[in-house]
Amino acid sequence: MRTIAIDAMGGENAPGAIVKAVLKAKGEMPDTKFLLFGDKEQLRNLIPADQINDQLGVVPTTEVIADEDEPVKAIRTKKDSSMVVAAHYVKEGKADALLSLGNTGALLSCGIFIIGRIKGIVRPGLMPTLPVKNSDDGFNMVDVGANAKSKPEYLLQWAEMASYYVEKIRGIENPRVMLLNNGAESDKGDDVHQKAYELLKNSKLNFLGNIEGNELMIGKADVVVTDGFTGNAALKTIEGTSSVLLHLLKDSLLDGGVMTKLGALMIKGSLASLKSKFDTAKYGGAVLLGVNAPVVKTHGRSDERPIYYTLKQVDKMIKENLVEDFKDEFATK
Amino acid sequence: MRTIAIDAMGGENAPGAIVKAVLKAKGEMPDTKFLLFGDKEQLRNLIPADQINDQLGVVPTTEVIADEDEPVKAIRTKKDSSMVVAAHYVKEGKADALLSLGNTGALLSCGIFIIGRIKGIVRPGLMPTLPVKNSDDGFNMVDVGANAKSKPEYLLQWAEMASYYVEKIRGIENPRVMLLNNGAESDKGDDVHQKAYELLKNSKLNFLGNIEGNELMIGKADVVVTDGFTGNAALKTIEGTSSVLLHLLKDSLLDGGVMTKLGALMIKGSLASLKSKFDTAKYGGAVLLGVNAPVVKTHGRSDERPIYYTLKQVDKMIKENLVEDFKDEFATK
Repeated sequence: MRTIAIDAMGGENAPGAIVKAVLKAKGEMPDTKFLLFGDKEQLRNLIPADQINDQLGVVPTTEVIADEDEPVKAIRTKKDSSMVVAAHYVKEGKADALLSLGNTGALLSCGIFIIGRIKGIVRPGLMPTLPVKNSDDGFNMVDVGANAKSKPEYLLQWAEMASYYVEKIRGIENPRVMLLNNGAESDKGDDVHQKAYELLKNSKLNFLGNIEGNELMIGKADVVVTDGFTGNAALKTIEGTSSVLLHLLKDSLLDGGVMTKLGALMIKGSLASLKSKFDTAKYGGAVLLGVNAPVVKTHGRSDERPIYYTLKQVDKMIKENLVEDFKDEFATK
Repeated sequence: MRTIAIDAMGGENAPGAIVKAVLKAKGEMPDTKFLLFGDKEQLRNLIPADQINDQLGVVPTTEVIADEDEPVKAIRTKKDSSMVVAAHYVKEGKADALLSLGNTGALLSCGIFIIGRIKGIVRPGLMPTLPVKNSDDGFNMVDVGANAKSKPEYLLQWAEMASYYVEKIRGIENPRVMLLNNGAESDKGDDVHQKAYELLKNSKLNFLGNIEGNELMIGKADVVVTDGFTGNAALKTIEGTSSVLLHLLKDSLLDGGVMTKLGALMIKGSLASLKSKFDTAKYGGAVLLGVNAPVVKTHGRSDERPIYYTLKQVDKMIKENLVEDFKDEFATK
């Protein structure tokens, strides 16, 4: 049986939305055990007594890591926090994967310092799946902020892991890999990006060259590899720009006269389909590639649906032995 | 009399849109002379003979730098191109500023290698003005790609020049300066950004700390300073995300049924106001800060309106002696 350790206390809608998602997933995933880490009272109130069985367990913890906590300090001092105890369960082999909606930095620290790096991987990288227009497939971008400083060799390993993930978990053959850079030509960028370009070109990956920020969402690449600093800025800029535009659209419709309001009602369905295009819930969470077990972060604002999809994503990663394959691949290098 | 040297051959709508904008601006700016550099025949056909006078001149050139030309090579080999001849006019004092819609890299090279760096400025930086929600003011971001590799001292100088520009040209007092980084805390980022944070904090600027990609368009800062590599990615990601979202919105309305199409008609006015919110034409072009004369790039797809606004922006930069002030300020440092 596969076991997912779930930090039930992280995120804005914890633990309610997390419990709901687990109860839904449980019925559909009979070979998977869900271990919820968190406040005993709260969890007991949310989970019907008859649901606690071989497939669903609660591990009581007394502390919670807050979003504003300093990550490394938090995992050192809050030893009985839901996130840290869950991470130790994975480290000790009592669970196969870790899922959290909490403090991203703390989760990265749990992955790197408690669960540990895969032998042969220099630096783990964080990889979300993001939407593209004209396709439901989306693309994976790595690293989006696990590393403030990146070396060319990191980028090559991230690209290799991401490409394998896209093929095995998302079912896309021979994924197209591109490098986020400041121009199309091979000599673009600083030393890190010029060297990374060479490494990628000489690898076995299906490397198609450089991609620029304005092309990220047009579906040119399945994997975009980037240094963690630029990737972080690009990811947050996508989030910020989408959010501002959708709010302005909403405001401009609400501020209009009767005609506009009536018109807005009539296009409601089309707007919903636009919104679902940018609904990244179905992609699951962001994966910390390069640690000894699947460690996945779902957005802190997530409600039941994205958490449910992330449970499916994590389950598939365990089932497909993704991390075991990484261990075999990188240990021999 | 102030003189603007205009590369009439750069951009998708050249030279027609450029001539139109100049003819419009000419009537409103009686103290300014417009020198158009480009193909004699084409320009003669576009400009009514009676318009050629003390205020409007044509300098015939025989070559054009294309968007796909390699910048440094292009300015060395295409010596009779509209852009290069215009740059030499500025260098030789026969014009006060340079405006182009052409190859950005070539224009940067013209600015840096022909017109030259201001004494005391280590590296010039490229600075567009970008929109924010809930305000018409926008913000300035520098550097967005003149430099692939940046040092902390460059960022400080860019912030100083941008802050002065915002105060003097855009009329915003005591501009709020922020550093694009991967988190709010002062120790965030790599060495370059940590050091830049210190330099900005200890400067006389109104420095408010770090800003993240998702906050760029919410109006927290008047000046966002960034290394040229990250700034390039952030700028292009804003452009790409806006473009994809607005296209998807359009498509979802066009693909809808009769109700949706009728609704779309009814909200047309509101959508136009949304679009005008993101109409950056009124801000003018991107300024190359740190060279011996105003050098301004307008988007290659610009039609008459943004070019007209850029002419006004350039004219103001000459009139306010912006570059002279920079020369005084940085020579003494």
